[in-house]
Amino acid sequence: MNEPQTVGALGEDAIIQLFARPAEAPDGLVVGNGDDAAAWRFEPPFTSVITTDSLVEGYHFDLAYSSAFAVGRKLVAVNVSDLAAMGARPRFALLSVCLPSPTEVGVVRRLADGVHDACAEHGVVVFGGNTTGIRGPIVLTATLIGQAEAKVLVCRAGAQPGDAVFVTGVLGDAAAGLHLALRGLRPGRSEPEARLLQALVDPEPRVAAGQALGGSGLVHAMCDVSDGLGRDLPRILESGLGARIEAGALPMSDALVRYAAATETSAAHFALAGGEDYELLFTAHPDDQDRLVDLGRRSGTSVTRIGTITESGVVEVVSAKGDVSSVPTGFEHFTSEVE
Amino acid sequence: MNEPQTVGALGEDAIIQLFARPAEAPDGLVVGNGDDAAAWRFEPPFTSVITTDSLVEGYHFDLAYSSAFAVGRKLVAVNVSDLAAMGARPRFALLSVCLPSPTEVGVVRRLADGVHDACAEHGVVVFGGNTTGIRGPIVLTATLIGQAEAKVLVCRAGAQPGDAVFVTGVLGDAAAGLHLALRGLRPGRSEPEARLLQALVDPEPRVAAGQALGGSGLVHAMCDVSDGLGRDLPRILESGLGARIEAGALPMSDALVRYAAATETSAAHFALAGGEDYELLFTAHPDDQDRLVDLGRRSGTSVTRIGTITESGVVEVVSAKGDVSSVPTGFEHFTSEVE
Repeated sequence: MNEPQTVGALGEDAIIQLFARPAEAPDGLVVGNGDDAAAWRFEPPFTSVITTDSLVEGYHFDLAYSSAFAVGRKLVAVNVSDLAAMGARPRFALLSVCLPSPTEVGVVRRLADGVHDACAEHGVVVFGGNTTGIRGPIVLTATLIGQAEAKVLVCRAGAQPGDAVFVTGVLGDAAAGLHLALRGLRPGRSEPEARLLQALVDPEPRVAAGQALGGSGLVHAMCDVSDGLGRDLPRILESGLGARIEAGALPMSDALVRYAAATETSAAHFALAGGEDYELLFTAHPDDQDRLVDLGRRSGTSVTRIGTITESGVVEVVSAKGDVSSVPTGFEHFTSEVE
Repeated sequence: MNEPQTVGALGEDAIIQLFARPAEAPDGLVVGNGDDAAAWRFEPPFTSVITTDSLVEGYHFDLAYSSAFAVGRKLVAVNVSDLAAMGARPRFALLSVCLPSPTEVGVVRRLADGVHDACAEHGVVVFGGNTTGIRGPIVLTATLIGQAEAKVLVCRAGAQPGDAVFVTGVLGDAAAGLHLALRGLRPGRSEPEARLLQALVDPEPRVAAGQALGGSGLVHAMCDVSDGLGRDLPRILESGLGARIEAGALPMSDALVRYAAATETSAAHFALAGGEDYELLFTAHPDDQDRLVDLGRRSGTSVTRIGTITESGVVEVVSAKGDVSSVPTGFEHFTSEVE
């Protein structure tokens, strides 16, 4: 018998089977897949940590430049990144999947494969969810549950005047990847361009670094960079605080610098205003820089000091020449896309 | 200054404010709104229970026949119903809201008001979420977290041959309400028709009954009726089990019976194949019927025996005349709507 070719022909229960695959019952699981709800218990001193995020076709992804497998991976990654930014260990996932009925079953299968691939990479078990039709784009929502001791959880509040501002990895690659994708470039692209596109379609959340930083007790405030440094940095500044960022210190890949030069765009603008970096942004006492860099290295990522927390109430960027400007504010989900 | 009139003009951060309102920190909350993730801890012996469900405009709701306030309430109710079906007490919610930029801010505000109204009714605190744009319909996803002792959790598996099958409340009102709405009837409708439409747009999840039934230790298997009795009943039947449902025993409202007579439709068909009832369907030993009916009454709902678990492997419906037929299979999210 031939497999039905579209979601409409396959039906809801069969689609649920694609996403909710049997897995060995992990520690703490009380009720798994297939019930009205799932249940778990983390023994003290662990708390449960939770986040949710959606990927909307035509908004966050486009199957013209991203494989369905990569979209499934990214759905998990963007949520895992939020858990990493709290210092938590990812454990369970719920999915809510809205699929238009003409969607090819092969696409759904590759989405599900990507979800499971990323879950396996991060030790996450999908233990519930929901699928439905939609007359519109594909909408994928994941809810990720992690565990952490309350004392290692790192919140956005907590930055102190005089703190150094740090970021993991490099900034701006994903935004340049989107710029590249929107220009419609297709296969045959160069190695650096492939790297930028890779950063966009298959980001690597800083899970090990997040847990190491949270566990160190050295970090005062932390978040992930999802909407761009210019929008995310102000979110960790409580009332009255500001920050001074050294443009020359922003960690950028060679691929980004070369792409910006070739396209007459600004690498620093991609790094400051971009979005979808899924790096960790955090503050700590400047004296702890060496220990933090070492923690990052042992977790597989660079850690770079990019500035200082001030009492100015504003975020300023200092250019290599010493010119001071206000920071671009990055990705606005409701009005525009990064270009 | 005038308030911006559309979501596109308002921007993401302002929309998040509408949904994530300050609330008193409830028991067990560790990290609330405004961080990368939320965190909580239920002290032993409680487990965390979780479910997620989406409402898609044009699929699950239509602002032509449902107010935005009612849609917000229903988003919470359909998820609370899943927790009720496990015997759990609702505690926290996460929202993921996809809004097209032309959406009027007033609509979003009323959606958020409805969410908060239902949360207040059920003792739920919204402690996180995410908003994004979409080029398509409004998509609302809620994740609800409840708490329950592991020993009171009632799963779908567990029905025994010879068990009586019970249901709370009445069946078919919401399906008749949808039938009514799709016929385009507008204000001026009669009291019974208003009741059917109310069942569709503002269902009442059986939270107190779910906890009472779970806590009683009498219930062998339970789920909520969201896709219609014909689809949900087979989901509680493990391999080899069947059920025999007495059509004459199905609890139906006078409003449904009168509507079916007036429109020459079948009340029993609405009750069997409908969907969106959000009643509890469960099995228990037939000798416990009186105690279960009493538990239901004290929780504000009727409990009706509608049939018996068999070893036939199929679900049969016995008419008042004794004719046996197979059960209609209800709502299929990907191919059709109930009519």
